[in-house]
Amino acid sequence: MAPALDVYLTELRTEVQDALERVLAALGAPPTIAAPIRYALIAPGKRLRPCLTLAAAESVGRAHGLNPLEARARARPAACAVEMVHTYSLVHDDLPAMDDDALRRGRPTTHVVYGDGLAILTGDGLLTDAFAAIARSPSPAAAPGDPEAPPEARLRAVDTLAAAAGSVGMVGGQALDLAAAGTAGAEAGTTAAAALEDMHARKTGALIRAASVMGAILAGGDDRQIAAIDAYARDLGLAFQIVDDVLDVEGSAADLGKTAGKDAAAGKLTFPALHGLETSRLMATACVDRARAALVAADLTGRLDDIASWSLGRTR
Amino acid sequence: MAPALDVYLTELRTEVQDALERVLAALGAPPTIAAPIRYALIAPGKRLRPCLTLAAAESVGRAHGLNPLEARARARPAACAVEMVHTYSLVHDDLPAMDDDALRRGRPTTHVVYGDGLAILTGDGLLTDAFAAIARSPSPAAAPGDPEAPPEARLRAVDTLAAAAGSVGMVGGQALDLAAAGTAGAEAGTTAAAALEDMHARKTGALIRAASVMGAILAGGDDRQIAAIDAYARDLGLAFQIVDDVLDVEGSAADLGKTAGKDAAAGKLTFPALHGLETSRLMATACVDRARAALVAADLTGRLDDIASWSLGRTR
Repeated sequence: MAPALDVYLTELRTEVQDALERVLAALGAPPTIAAPIRYALIAPGKRLRPCLTLAAAESVGRAHGLNPLEARARARPAACAVEMVHTYSLVHDDLPAMDDDALRRGRPTTHVVYGDGLAILTGDGLLTDAFAAIARSPSPAAAPGDPEAPPEARLRAVDTLAAAAGSVGMVGGQALDLAAAGTAGAEAGTTAAAALEDMHARKTGALIRAASVMGAILAGGDDRQIAAIDAYARDLGLAFQIVDDVLDVEGSAADLGKTAGKDAAAGKLTFPALHGLETSRLMATACVDRARAALVAADLTGRLDDIASWSLGRTR
Repeated sequence: MAPALDVYLTELRTEVQDALERVLAALGAPPTIAAPIRYALIAPGKRLRPCLTLAAAESVGRAHGLNPLEARARARPAACAVEMVHTYSLVHDDLPAMDDDALRRGRPTTHVVYGDGLAILTGDGLLTDAFAAIARSPSPAAAPGDPEAPPEARLRAVDTLAAAAGSVGMVGGQALDLAAAGTAGAEAGTTAAAALEDMHARKTGALIRAASVMGAILAGGDDRQIAAIDAYARDLGLAFQIVDDVLDVEGSAADLGKTAGKDAAAGKLTFPALHGLETSRLMATACVDRARAALVAADLTGRLDDIASWSLGRTR
């Protein structure tokens, strides 16, 4: 019998944590910048994105005869890279010039501790070093003896991550979010709903997709498998965003590890604001059903299915 | 007879400009972020780094039987990438939380025009998209029919750029510079001189080296040629930094396109402050002599030699 999902995810998080420690040690940055990078990166967190990278690699690798540990080892540099990119985006989004958040993952945000200048550089460093984690041979994320994916696959992973995180993806989504702040209710109906989905598809969806797709690429996935993982992750990412918005309305600061009710206070467009709480919950369930169907259609097995179900019930 | 250096550099700058326009068009970012990215990137500038990428590719390519246009075409994605990374660093360094500059390349800085939040995102987008320019196939920087360097070489170029720009390189140097602001004269002698050179080696030297080395890698250079180009660029970069510091003391805002005397006013460590103007000039000349010798020792010909000489006489 397979271990419970929480046992599995804890195993993956430990793997990611160890690999991130290797990356920090291998880089050897000056202490002035290494300290805030460590503060931001080695914080308690769900590690959703790197877990998706590893779980997707395991699922696709199984279809190609790779054992789970080998598949995960090939994808581990990308798992670290996507967590580094995610962390950079949190550090920059929390800045006073952006969302101005003082609390993140239950701790003071990086700029509160180190100042705005170093926080900007912390994000810049994490983002840049993420690409080295995938491109360098051997990867600073690799344990001795880890197998390495072929150059073509790693190059494609670099492009996948850059496309998802860049001006067309996450950065573009954050720019749209900045521009839209305070406009909730100004536009109603289909236009606002479409704009909200487009903004989230870029701001959070693109990186969740890239995380999963990189796992599939590095485990040797074919076009059909990569497309299935991408479809799975698109719907999973949307479900996560809807649940986040619902939790922001319902949750307390202690549960969330960040300031609750902040989105509403900032006048931001959210799923509950546009569709109501009950419809938002139904939308999330439909997303998860579609995500699971995409896996079945491509004969992909493994823990991705459980992760999709878990995403609905989480409380933070 | 070869054309004069300024004619040659103008040709290279036009090539870079055209390629950057292709990158912006191919990316297709939302207008909210595409506008400030264009504002920052398509500004009058020396384009030193991409010119070095192209000239190094031409020089190394010649030794491997590539004609100049073919060698430059293979290196063009990296030339765009290094200019995008350089531009991102200027946009972030100019922010109020960093060097707080209102004028750059003779125009209002990006954050003055678009606000701090969008300026941070502009830098983030440029940095991320730079890696896509190298990793994607075909590159958004490529003209139809352009030859492409092999995957191994492009992966190595990604790592070269990430290592130079990341927390060990440029970002680390800027962090050290931030931490050192206001400490000029606090420490005198060898320690301060060594700290100054280390800071500059990271902050500006690393990217100039990466620019040149990527050109050598993508043109098919062997280890000896790549090492020679790296040695050349290390000394050229140091010469550039020394001349910049000298010009900051001597120059006017109109010549420099930025606020003159700013370094001294900020109490920053500079070469003239540590060594005096005359010794600083001699140090720059010695750097250029060493840079030219590195080329000769590896039998590399072409315009890199002229570029080194030109770097001493420039007025901005």
